[in-house]
Amino acid sequence: MARADAYECYCLSFDYGQRHAVELEAARKVAASLGAAEHKVARIDLRIFGASALTANIDVPKDRAREAMSAGIPVTYVPARNTIFLAFALAYAEVRCAYDIFIGVNAIDYSGYPDCRPEFISAFETVANLATKAGVEGAGRIRIQAPLSAMNKADIVKTALRLGVDLGLTHSCYDPTPAGVPCGQCDACILRQKGFEEAGVLDPALAGL
Amino acid sequence: MARADAYECYCLSFDYGQRHAVELEAARKVAASLGAAEHKVARIDLRIFGASALTANIDVPKDRAREAMSAGIPVTYVPARNTIFLAFALAYAEVRCAYDIFIGVNAIDYSGYPDCRPEFISAFETVANLATKAGVEGAGRIRIQAPLSAMNKADIVKTALRLGVDLGLTHSCYDPTPAGVPCGQCDACILRQKGFEEAGVLDPALAGL
Repeated sequence: MARADAYECYCLSFDYGQRHAVELEAARKVAASLGAAEHKVARIDLRIFGASALTANIDVPKDRAREAMSAGIPVTYVPARNTIFLAFALAYAEVRCAYDIFIGVNAIDYSGYPDCRPEFISAFETVANLATKAGVEGAGRIRIQAPLSAMNKADIVKTALRLGVDLGLTHSCYDPTPAGVPCGQCDACILRQKGFEEAGVLDPALAGL
Repeated sequence: MARADAYECYCLSFDYGQRHAVELEAARKVAASLGAAEHKVARIDLRIFGASALTANIDVPKDRAREAMSAGIPVTYVPARNTIFLAFALAYAEVRCAYDIFIGVNAIDYSGYPDCRPEFISAFETVANLATKAGVEGAGRIRIQAPLSAMNKADIVKTALRLGVDLGLTHSCYDPTPAGVPCGQCDACILRQKGFEEAGVLDPALAGL
């Protein structure tokens, strides 16, 4: 969506001690396929703090119903993760003289994470403009853009297809096999399946499995 | 000051690709001498973004007059550094069920950094309470405490002495020798010297140099 709006894209992924690197490889392929100007991977070790199923030795919950997903913040919540991600993105943006930071959070078909909500994104935008040389002395206002925020997963699938994104390159599963095969049972897999079903298309990432 | 207010202290320092590790060694000694419950060092590589005299190959400015220090944001500004530091501290606090985050920023005798200002700290506190499970479901409100913010350096020196802090363990210089001897000419050294002079005491870190 940023590319369609004629932004030159500098992409940032995080090697944060997550359970698997499949999503980092997927991010590399997506960035390359969409003609990113640059793609950096920041290494940050969130395991020194532990306490999440995505960074510590806690089982990822499986086969949860939608009601259970909506009932509270799950163990896959990583403390302050999106705050940390946006803080790094802010540093990267400032160094590249960029004023627009895009983040793919979603607040509709989401899994109960507080740092995916619009009020969090808006509050961080205020921080971004107070924290930086770019915000204080710069030529514009830093904007945190979350274009997927108010879309459901079906709309996200349809928009991706309309814009020519190869969704076969993307990865959602929290707990894939070492070869990258999604488990089909975690919240991320269930929400992804629901999105493709409602959009009426097959998930190309599952083709040939 | 947190210890004097009966907080149990979990300390967090950052190995962020700064020019020297002298300050990390000083932080370790200070934490140990004050009876910290824990001291963690998070490794984060801000050099992948570059663009600061503290993380890239740019000279640290020397012998600047106070007026020059106040005239703008210096090259020693590290993009989004305190935002990144507070984001990590927020993760650490949440994992330890802590609701009070202390940061030693100073907005009086400071060197022009936007992310040392009270309005930045206040905006980050808003983010902290929106971003986290602790803020959304927790028992209290997360507070970002910056007790040095409104003090001048002389008051900071006097307060430290009153509380029994060994200032000989502390380090301020941006550009010390490999053995840890301060340069005496960078903004941090000049502001530190001014503080000790105005407090009417000798800097114990300079004893025997």
